[in-house]
Formats: sequence, structure tokens, C-alpha cells
Amino acid sequence: METLSENRCFGGVQGVHRHRSDSCGCDMTFGLFLPPEAEEGPVPILWYLSGLTCTHENAMTKAGAQAWAAEHGIAICFPDTSPRGEDVADDPEYDLGQGAGFYVNATEKPWAPHFRMWDYLSEELPRILDNGFAIDPDRQAITGHSMGGHGALTLAMSLPGRFRSVSAFSPICHPTQSDWGRKQFEAYLGGVEAGRAHDASLLMRDTGFDGPLLVDVGTKDNFWDLLRIDALADAMAARRQPGQLRLQEGYDHSYFFVSSFMEDHIAFHAEALWA
Amino acid sequence: METLSENRCFGGVQGVHRHRSDSCGCDMTFGLFLPPEAEEGPVPILWYLSGLTCTHENAMTKAGAQAWAAEHGIAICFPDTSPRGEDVADDPEYDLGQGAGFYVNATEKPWAPHFRMWDYLSEELPRILDNGFAIDPDRQAITGHSMGGHGALTLAMSLPGRFRSVSAFSPICHPTQSDWGRKQFEAYLGGVEAGRAHDASLLMRDTGFDGPLLVDVGTKDNFWDLLRIDALADAMAARRQPGQLRLQEGYDHSYFFVSSFMEDHIAFHAEALWA
Repeated sequence: METLSENRCFGGVQGVHRHRSDSCGCDMTFGLFLPPEAEEGPVPILWYLSGLTCTHENAMTKAGAQAWAAEHGIAICFPDTSPRGEDVADDPEYDLGQGAGFYVNATEKPWAPHFRMWDYLSEELPRILDNGFAIDPDRQAITGHSMGGHGALTLAMSLPGRFRSVSAFSPICHPTQSDWGRKQFEAYLGGVEAGRAHDASLLMRDTGFDGPLLVDVGTKDNFWDLLRIDALADAMAARRQPGQLRLQEGYDHSYFFVSSFMEDHIAFHAEALWA
Repeated sequence: METLSENRCFGGVQGVHRHRSDSCGCDMTFGLFLPPEAEEGPVPILWYLSGLTCTHENAMTKAGAQAWAAEHGIAICFPDTSPRGEDVADDPEYDLGQGAGFYVNATEKPWAPHFRMWDYLSEELPRILDNGFAIDPDRQAITGHSMGGHGALTLAMSLPGRFRSVSAFSPICHPTQSDWGRKQFEAYLGGVEAGRAHDASLLMRDTGFDGPLLVDVGTKDNFWDLLRIDALADAMAARRQPGQLRLQEGYDHSYFFVSSFMEDHIAFHAEALWA
């Protein structure tokens, strides 16, 4: 593993690290914020999964998360959103290929050799962090934005016991019934049907989440119809899933929205992580 | 004036606006954050001047300022750092021409026709804000980063009574004796001597600032030698200028540093603005 940069930030350290990924068959880069407490021993960790077109860097520089992570003594990991590189398949559209891994293991050509973000985030990267940094693997939480909100919700519901709490900002909630989902499941998984295991609204009906859940979305989200918040709301109600779904008046899909509610989300996770 | 975007942010609005500038002879773009209180009437304003290579956008998305501006009911203006456009002179180096206006009025070719950032920021843009937005012109403060710290300090000391408080993050303090300054003064003003009126350390010896002053710089600033913090420190001591010069252990020149101390700076200005 190679450390690309380290910047002091809110008394802790914002690092950027690169490593060879066995899951993705390429070099992968991630950001990791460690609060001051990590100098003394392992700290809880919050995973932040990013949206379409993002790298590890966008949220790390624009979401305003480090202030609150430092306040609560929590690490934050900012993974990339897909495999990268010249020998990694790509697509000219922004919503497929590099920058758009959709947090699944691709089974279809040309994606299958590298697009294994599910394995990368559910197994490989947690192991790497556990081995290399002062992280407490028993205290994990997960959040994300848009496609990353989809990733956070689906990972949390599919890996019971892994995450103490889950939240999401403007998540893609029902990808099997959205143009943000169907196209990608067809490409990566060979069909929409295979994507049902990666649909937060379906998982909510089948499984739910055993812990606190918080979802925020802006009432002026410019991608409202693609997110299908209605489907998640229905599923939460059907299941009587404990949790909060908040529609925030006047906010859109941008990082100006994400940063506005980051304090709330990190305080929410801190309560579960430090319980 | 044209509004390019408006995003709800921390209960207020982050706008981006473009207008024809008489000073610069080109279109200029600026960011303006208005807190919720601006819907009721004029609010105090903090100017944030950015550093080399930046546009209006960098600090607006990465400095984490809106959270605290909203908390204190203060507007923040993020101007661009130079004139822009195809018919505006430029230089292949990052530290001259577009993105590097240095907050002066150029007198020399090829810069003189457009590079009039001093006039733009001391006269034109304040008038535009006063006419177009709920801003209280009697309650202004100014800050900035690096080249923008230089701009903030020199504007504040040169326009007595304009700003109630001044602060800076890792400012260029002594440009007449630094490679960040000498080259630019020679190009824009025809010589380093003409830059003496734009040297914060010299202005501090001659004039000082009649109000609270706060300067933060990281002890691991990667441009330490170019900033000449020592010269400003000497000048503050020589003048017995009331104020704080804080050397923050382990921090560098990045926005990770700026955002870490933004809360402090905005609280500092709020105290003066609401007094």
C-alpha cells in the first residue's frame, strides 16, 4: 500500500492511499480520515460511498464530514466508485463503467474481470483497513450519496451484524424500476432480475435493517424521479422498519445538500457506534 | 446580472452569479451565500478572497464556510481571482495572468486593460451586491487564503473604516520580498517598488488595521518560505497591532487546513459584525 498524501485536518489526518486490489484486479485509491483519537487506539469507522462520476476525492473535499467525524472521534473511509485504469472497461456515458460501479459484482463481459465493487467493499477493503489502520472492526457504520446511498443501504441490509447504523443522502432506492439501475444491472449482471438482490426497496421488504436508519432527500432533488424514494417509503411502512425518512424542503441533489445535513448524519452514527 | 445557479445550503442559498464588469472589461462570476436571515432583511457580509489558480468555486465548495455563516446569520461572497476570457491576457505559468490577479490594478501591457481586481473588489462588486442583494454595507468583514489572504489584509488596511474585522489563512505577507509577489508586481505594475502599496507587512508598519485581526498558518505549510509570515509577525510586533497570529501545528496550505479553522474565523468576524 502506498500513501499518496496526508493532510492535517480538524486535528486528525486526511490520508489518501493506493493499493493493489485483488477483487478489482487493478490499483484502487481511497481516502481515510482518522480523528485524533486514532493515535491512541482503534476508533469506530463510518463508510461513505459516493455517487455516479465521483472518485474517492469528491466527498472527501466537499461533504464537510471531517469536522463532525473529528468531534465524535470517528474515522471515515471514502472509497472509489469503480475500478480504474486503461485496461479496465469503460463506457462513454457517465452512468456506466468507470465512476459507476453500482456496488455490484459484474458477471458479464466486458465488465466481469474488474467490476467487483461488492467484494471490494464487503471484504477486501475492510480487511485492508483492519490490518493497516487503527480501526475497530466491531464498530462500523455506513452512509452514502445517490448511487452511494444505494450501496450503503444494500450493503447494510445484506450483511446483517456488520453495520451498527445506516444512513443515506438522496439514495437510489429502487434501481430495478429506474433508469438508474436497469441499464446498469443489464450491463453488469445480464438482466434486471439479477439486480433484485441489489435493490434497497426490495431488500427492505424482505429483510430490513436491524438498527437505526436515516435517509435524507431534498424536495427539489433534480433527479427525484430516478431515486424512487416513494418505493423505499412504501417498503419501510410495509415492514414497519424503525427509522427516519426526511424530506428536506428546497434542497437539491448537490453536495450543498449533503454538507448541510452531514452533522446530523455523523451524530446519528456516532450514537450507534459509541453505544 | 445573470444567476447561474442557486442551491439550498444550510437553510440559506448558495448562489452563483455572472455580470458584466466595467472594472475588468469582461464578464465576472462570483459566489454568494445568503443565510436564512437574508429573506427578512439586510445581513452582514464576509468577503472570502481565494488564492492562486482558484475561481469563485473552490472555496465555495471546499472551505466549509456556509455552515458557520448560516449559524451566525452572515452572507459570504466568493469573488473570482482575476478577469477571465479568451480576449483577456494570460500566461502559461499558474502564478501570473488568469487565476492570479493578485488584487491589484495592472498598469502594464498586456495586463492593464482587464486586470483591475483592486477596483473590482474595492468599488464595483460591493456596489453590485449592495444594489442587488440583502447586504448591509455598514457591516463588512474580509478574509482570504494565500494570495487571497494578501488581498484581504491589503484591502482591509488600505480602506480604513470599510471592514470591521480582517482575517487570513496562510496569507502571502510580504510580496515585495517573495517570489510570490516580485514577479507579479513587475508584470502588472512595472516594478517591485510599485508593489509596496500592496505589501501587507509594509502596510502593517505604516498603517495597521483599526479593528480585530486574526491570521492562521500551518507549521507544515508547503509554501512557508514564500509567505514570509516572519515579516508580518515583525511588523505586527513593531506596531503593537492588536490581533492574533496563530501557528497551527502540523497543518499545511490546503483546504483541509482552511476548513479546519473556518469555524473560528467566522465566529471571530461574527463578533465584530454583530457588535
